[in-house]
Amino acid sequence: MKMKESQFLLIKEQLKKLTSKECFYKQKLEGVNVDQIQSQEDFEKLPFTWKGDLREAYPLGLMTEPEEKIVRIHSSSGTTGTPVIIPYTQQDVDDWAFMFKRCYEMAGITNMDRIQITPGYGLWTAGIGFQLGAERLGAMTVPMGPGNTDKQLRMMMDMKSTVLCATSSYALLLAEEIAKRGIGDKICLKKGVIGSERWGDKMRQRIANELGVDLYDIYGLTEVYGPGIAINCQAQGAMHYWDDFIYLEIVDPKTGEVLPDGEVGEIVITTLRKQGAPLIRYRTHDLSRIVPGECPCGSPFPRIDTLIGRTDDMVKVKGVNIFPSQIEELLTVINGASSEYQVMVDHLMGKDVLTLFVETVPGVNRYALEIEIQTQFKGRIGLTPVVKLVDMGELPRSEKKSTRVFDNRY
Amino acid sequence: MKMKESQFLLIKEQLKKLTSKECFYKQKLEGVNVDQIQSQEDFEKLPFTWKGDLREAYPLGLMTEPEEKIVRIHSSSGTTGTPVIIPYTQQDVDDWAFMFKRCYEMAGITNMDRIQITPGYGLWTAGIGFQLGAERLGAMTVPMGPGNTDKQLRMMMDMKSTVLCATSSYALLLAEEIAKRGIGDKICLKKGVIGSERWGDKMRQRIANELGVDLYDIYGLTEVYGPGIAINCQAQGAMHYWDDFIYLEIVDPKTGEVLPDGEVGEIVITTLRKQGAPLIRYRTHDLSRIVPGECPCGSPFPRIDTLIGRTDDMVKVKGVNIFPSQIEELLTVINGASSEYQVMVDHLMGKDVLTLFVETVPGVNRYALEIEIQTQFKGRIGLTPVVKLVDMGELPRSEKKSTRVFDNRY
Ligand SMILES: [Zn+2]
Ligand SMILES: [Zn+2]
Repeated sequence: MKMKESQFLLIKEQLKKLTSKECFYKQKLEGVNVDQIQSQEDFEKLPFTWKGDLREAYPLGLMTEPEEKIVRIHSSSGTTGTPVIIPYTQQDVDDWAFMFKRCYEMAGITNMDRIQITPGYGLWTAGIGFQLGAERLGAMTVPMGPGNTDKQLRMMMDMKSTVLCATSSYALLLAEEIAKRGIGDKICLKKGVIGSERWGDKMRQRIANELGVDLYDIYGLTEVYGPGIAINCQAQGAMHYWDDFIYLEIVDPKTGEVLPDGEVGEIVITTLRKQGAPLIRYRTHDLSRIVPGECPCGSPFPRIDTLIGRTDDMVKVKGVNIFPSQIEELLTVINGASSEYQVMVDHLMGKDVLTLFVETVPGVNRYALEIEIQTQFKGRIGLTPVVKLVDMGELPRSEKKSTRVFDNRY
Repeated sequence: MKMKESQFLLIKEQLKKLTSKECFYKQKLEGVNVDQIQSQEDFEKLPFTWKGDLREAYPLGLMTEPEEKIVRIHSSSGTTGTPVIIPYTQQDVDDWAFMFKRCYEMAGITNMDRIQITPGYGLWTAGIGFQLGAERLGAMTVPMGPGNTDKQLRMMMDMKSTVLCATSSYALLLAEEIAKRGIGDKICLKKGVIGSERWGDKMRQRIANELGVDLYDIYGLTEVYGPGIAINCQAQGAMHYWDDFIYLEIVDPKTGEVLPDGEVGEIVITTLRKQGAPLIRYRTHDLSRIVPGECPCGSPFPRIDTLIGRTDDMVKVKGVNIFPSQIEELLTVINGASSEYQVMVDHLMGKDVLTLFVETVPGVNRYALEIEIQTQFKGRIGLTPVVKLVDMGELPRSEKKSTRVFDNRY
């Protein structure tokens, strides 16, 4: 996607600032002559920023404004070692709330809605983002935080909450509880704003049906404000992102080359206005694609597709990149196949072989089904798999997509 | 304390507004002619508002602004039945942050401090109040929320937090952990802002010593914004409250009569600027007194004493109001007495008798000690008790003051 003039100017200004004082990027961009960056092509030669760089800067190496301007830190989870600390100025906090408000507006939410917020508060950039954005909109927030399902449901009924903000798994849990307790007619929810993960269409359908709501995927990551930098519009299917706050590229996860619009690759983000911890070409590890063309909703903001997976989930077989979510999507359109599957990739007799195990409903014509899955797989993903059909319940259950793919080649 | 002209005008304006539209107070003040309220004395004839009134208004009966102006609710805990829901407008949220900022400033905290926030977020008016006030000040907040002591201590060290916001019990737990782990020299704390409860001077001393910090009691309640309406100054000993936002009376908990400055009674609060849910003469059940005279710190804001207890803890014997905290304070100044005690009130042979059981350190002269406790009790509290000394460890342990007083008369 072509960089806008306004984006180029903001990036240029930022690069000048970052290379003129002691900070994380002064080091990182050592040897780069900012004056010589004259075009998008020049910008695309700048080095990427990796999560590892951010970890190395722990605790406050990313801070690029003086202490007295920093009003908050957030932190991404440190399950895999050192956490990443992101400092925010008041302007960063305000910009985040502004973008989040825009997300709610994109989803058709107004100041007459009552927004029940179930993601957690604290170091994680979740609850407080959902809350301050909703307050900026003028909606009534019901700040719950996570857990305590009894109280959640009671408040949902008593406060007549119209919007639920949640992770997909907690939304499903609430939907199931509501069904189980038979209190659906006391629930006033109309919309769900769900933190974007790689969740399947079937789960989305279940939540939407059981709660009787429209669902909106909201995208973001702690390193770049938090959730609120992109969301579905009412045309659904893709997320508009705020290109006045972030510059977004899609790159080949292996080569780092910028890909043309429409091709799937890794989302790379450059912040345009962030003060506390600006990021230049940050590798998110999230896979998506720019959706080309205009959106039927008329919004001028560009779109990315629903997340397809993480670069870490991807497996490459015979030169084809395969993501668990593609397989899930494939199975939803095939009658007789359940959503349970497993993939084995092996190197046999000098060749890579992908075997797809799928649970089938009883009484199906297995031969015809195998052929259909093979054909659809080849057509959609670009590779012919070995298909093995098994009975319902034979495959191990897992919530994580990545644990359904086993690469036995190495 | 004499009502200021500016307070009277704000109250009058508010009463006019509240009686001119359908709302909680239109009903509550039925029959009151606002035009006839011409003085503080007239105001003091208005009926009190009780927590029970607020419970009856559940869920949104207190809301006195149109829905689109309400941006948030908070709720006081519903452990004893229906919770109370307090709606906030954006102005209420901003006023709260403004008052909280003033609290931090009163404690000498600046935008160069790093404020670690351990109270919870969500429906409770704690974490987010501490956070938005600190952000308004421009300090760097480290938003932790409760629990996870390992992570708390790690962040405290790595972020070099200089201010700890906590409940007294969590502050004590952290102090003990720091001592146990021997990491005191890696802790940079200078001040603690502790949610005001009725906590003993001994606990305060322990926290202050172990953490090496100055402690500030911060006062507030969900029904009236939340914590942040009063705090100790550096002269300590009493809390300044913000009389441009609240009008505060001290009343006799039994008769409701307004008491002269200096006398202990129940804190009654009237909000002066609150929009979402204004309160007129709200009975807090907290016991304190107006501290007369000027504060050595020079602040023009009036003062209330450290909380003495809850009206529910109070026991009346021979016409004298007795609070557990008075007994605790008494015991701290008596050599040979420990802080463990129990009170029994009985009606024997037509008379009320108060028996005070006190654990004593070994080897003390029991006869002399009994006389001393009796004399001091009479002098400070105004009643002669029967004193029974027992060995260390004989009395049951309890964290709650109120469970140390047993009234066997009824
Ligand atoms: Zn659209
Ligand atoms: Zn003072």
